[in-house]
Amino acid sequence: MIYLDNAATTRMTNNAIRQMYKIMNEDYGNPSSIYEYGIASRGRIENARNVIASTLQVLPEEIYFTSGGTEANNWAIVGTAFSKRDKGSHIITSRVEHKSVIKTCEFLERLGYEISYIDVNEAGVIDVGQLEKAIRPDTILISVMCINNEVGSVMPLKEIGELAASRNVLFHTDAVQAYGHIPIECHEWHIDMLSVSAHKFHGPKGVGFLYIRNGTNIYPLINGGNQERGMRSGTENVAGIVGMAEAAREMYENMDEEMMKIKELKNLLYRELHNRVEGIHAHGDYIEGASNILSVVVDGVDAVCLVDSLGQNEVCVSAGSACNSREIQSSHVLKAMGVGEMAARSTIRLSLSKYNNREEILKVAEIFEETVNHLREIY
Amino acid sequence: MIYLDNAATTRMTNNAIRQMYKIMNEDYGNPSSIYEYGIASRGRIENARNVIASTLQVLPEEIYFTSGGTEANNWAIVGTAFSKRDKGSHIITSRVEHKSVIKTCEFLERLGYEISYIDVNEAGVIDVGQLEKAIRPDTILISVMCINNEVGSVMPLKEIGELAASRNVLFHTDAVQAYGHIPIECHEWHIDMLSVSAHKFHGPKGVGFLYIRNGTNIYPLINGGNQERGMRSGTENVAGIVGMAEAAREMYENMDEEMMKIKELKNLLYRELHNRVEGIHAHGDYIEGASNILSVVVDGVDAVCLVDSLGQNEVCVSAGSACNSREIQSSHVLKAMGVGEMAARSTIRLSLSKYNNREEILKVAEIFEETVNHLREIY
Repeated sequence: MIYLDNAATTRMTNNAIRQMYKIMNEDYGNPSSIYEYGIASRGRIENARNVIASTLQVLPEEIYFTSGGTEANNWAIVGTAFSKRDKGSHIITSRVEHKSVIKTCEFLERLGYEISYIDVNEAGVIDVGQLEKAIRPDTILISVMCINNEVGSVMPLKEIGELAASRNVLFHTDAVQAYGHIPIECHEWHIDMLSVSAHKFHGPKGVGFLYIRNGTNIYPLINGGNQERGMRSGTENVAGIVGMAEAAREMYENMDEEMMKIKELKNLLYRELHNRVEGIHAHGDYIEGASNILSVVVDGVDAVCLVDSLGQNEVCVSAGSACNSREIQSSHVLKAMGVGEMAARSTIRLSLSKYNNREEILKVAEIFEETVNHLREIY
Repeated sequence: MIYLDNAATTRMTNNAIRQMYKIMNEDYGNPSSIYEYGIASRGRIENARNVIASTLQVLPEEIYFTSGGTEANNWAIVGTAFSKRDKGSHIITSRVEHKSVIKTCEFLERLGYEISYIDVNEAGVIDVGQLEKAIRPDTILISVMCINNEVGSVMPLKEIGELAASRNVLFHTDAVQAYGHIPIECHEWHIDMLSVSAHKFHGPKGVGFLYIRNGTNIYPLINGGNQERGMRSGTENVAGIVGMAEAAREMYENMDEEMMKIKELKNLLYRELHNRVEGIHAHGDYIEGASNILSVVVDGVDAVCLVDSLGQNEVCVSAGSACNSREIQSSHVLKAMGVGEMAARSTIRLSLSKYNNREEILKVAEIFEETVNHLREIY
């Protein structure tokens, strides 16, 4: 099997699995207990928090563990909306956010909040001028993703952060596709909140975190036994948290070099596909976009068919909306970029990781060519 | 080490660990993907859902996976509050609920909802007459736990459920301490929603579920990519879900027999403690209470000191509020039962599981006696 769907989920690192296995077997103490056995679990969680904080150069106390990126996005937006109700009820986001941001905004609209959705250009990058004009005295939050999950466009976070700070508006970013992949400057970019999911960087599913800058007051989304300093209750997923920290440590150990290698593989992949298959071209900004995400149109070929056929040849890729390919509907991201219905239906996403290699890429190009030729013949 | 803190968290079963290890190693496909590899993950989730549904004799489509019991409790209460706002804003609960219920109710109070907290008797059992009188035309939810986590009192769920159904009020129960321990009759008891946490029955931390009876309309707490039929978004914690289902299967395989065995051990433990140590007596209804939870006052001994000393002798138990012993404060449960401040501060909880045996219990009684004698000497 050749796995090129790393923007959907990733293979776990061996070290993360090993550490989780050990904890599940031997260290089941409740981190809230006061006997040695519980204190050891508490220590493992705090070590993990230190590791993750250091990858972002922030304080450990600014990291709050969650059940994943979706919960973190929901929390950041709903928690801000409820806590800032006195100041206002206006939120700004982009048209190309992940569903966990867009659906949360729609939920708040039903509760009486007002949302401005900012346009993107044809490369999938947000229009900062339009965003600036949208800021009002009652604006409480700007939520813009770091890297788009469907096309890999990289947003100008520094510019947005400076704008938000200068207008005294909180700034949240969904960094699910960015953390572990590009350097993120929380302080320099004036980020108040940042969402991350472990399974996008070779950690386990079901765990993630929200960075909340000290001094940023938001409501908890999940209340109870006061874990995570009262901000996110529920007995901690000790094994998951430790696995996530180990995966993060490995990603940041060698990030620049790995990303260079991945970008080279992506370039090779696009070159090969382009040479072998007629009528293929990339969405987004191929040069400035994410190193690991390649979104291409294959003229006249139905993407779901293509993904299915590639899957039968043991090549894993995605069609349309990434995290949930089961929802066959045209992508809101491509639509916002001005891509027509036909091209959107012929779009597939290939996303790479550090576990891919040159041989795999050449093999995929070969299988891709055969598959597209076959599909074009039968239609 | 002798572990008698199973109401806080439990040791995982070997089979659950083994299955999770295999999934983390080999089966990392995203359950929402349409290629074989993703479809296999989807299949594992649906198998797990079937297993869990069958333990409760409900439909698989009525089971929604969450990150644990705390999220499930938050979701049931907040999701009902938001969806039934047109009908009313009055919620009824008891004074002895888990913090994840009480704090969620307090959060809703800040949003303008009204909460009635029903008293319990000295055994920790809710006053159903008072509950009945509290129901109003604008009551939208009754939330009463199944088994209390601190003292093991068992609530009359059938009576409450019939009352709720007859008055057309939704009925939610926090079954975190009950699932896998006693037979639960969702239909006969008219339960509309039921919360469960895997790590309380030898499954992994960070996963649980909410049962929602078909036809019960509540809002999601976490919005996004439409996983769990749009009711709980976020990429599924496949390994955790499979581990939980395996632990559930094992618990239900032999539940009655195991619980009988555990109850015998609890009786032995209390008899031994009582014989060896002066001034010790049990809270709650010792006969009718949960088989696995023993809450005792040790006159004149500080519970935190006792727990710490027992811990140094490799015996793990809890003081006061169970899930989070780090918060040294007097228990709201004991207070509601009419237990005085002094007795509350001398209360410890010993909670058993199927992994305990007779030898351990006798050993604990011995260590307990020595420890209490020592503490009483030095004070």
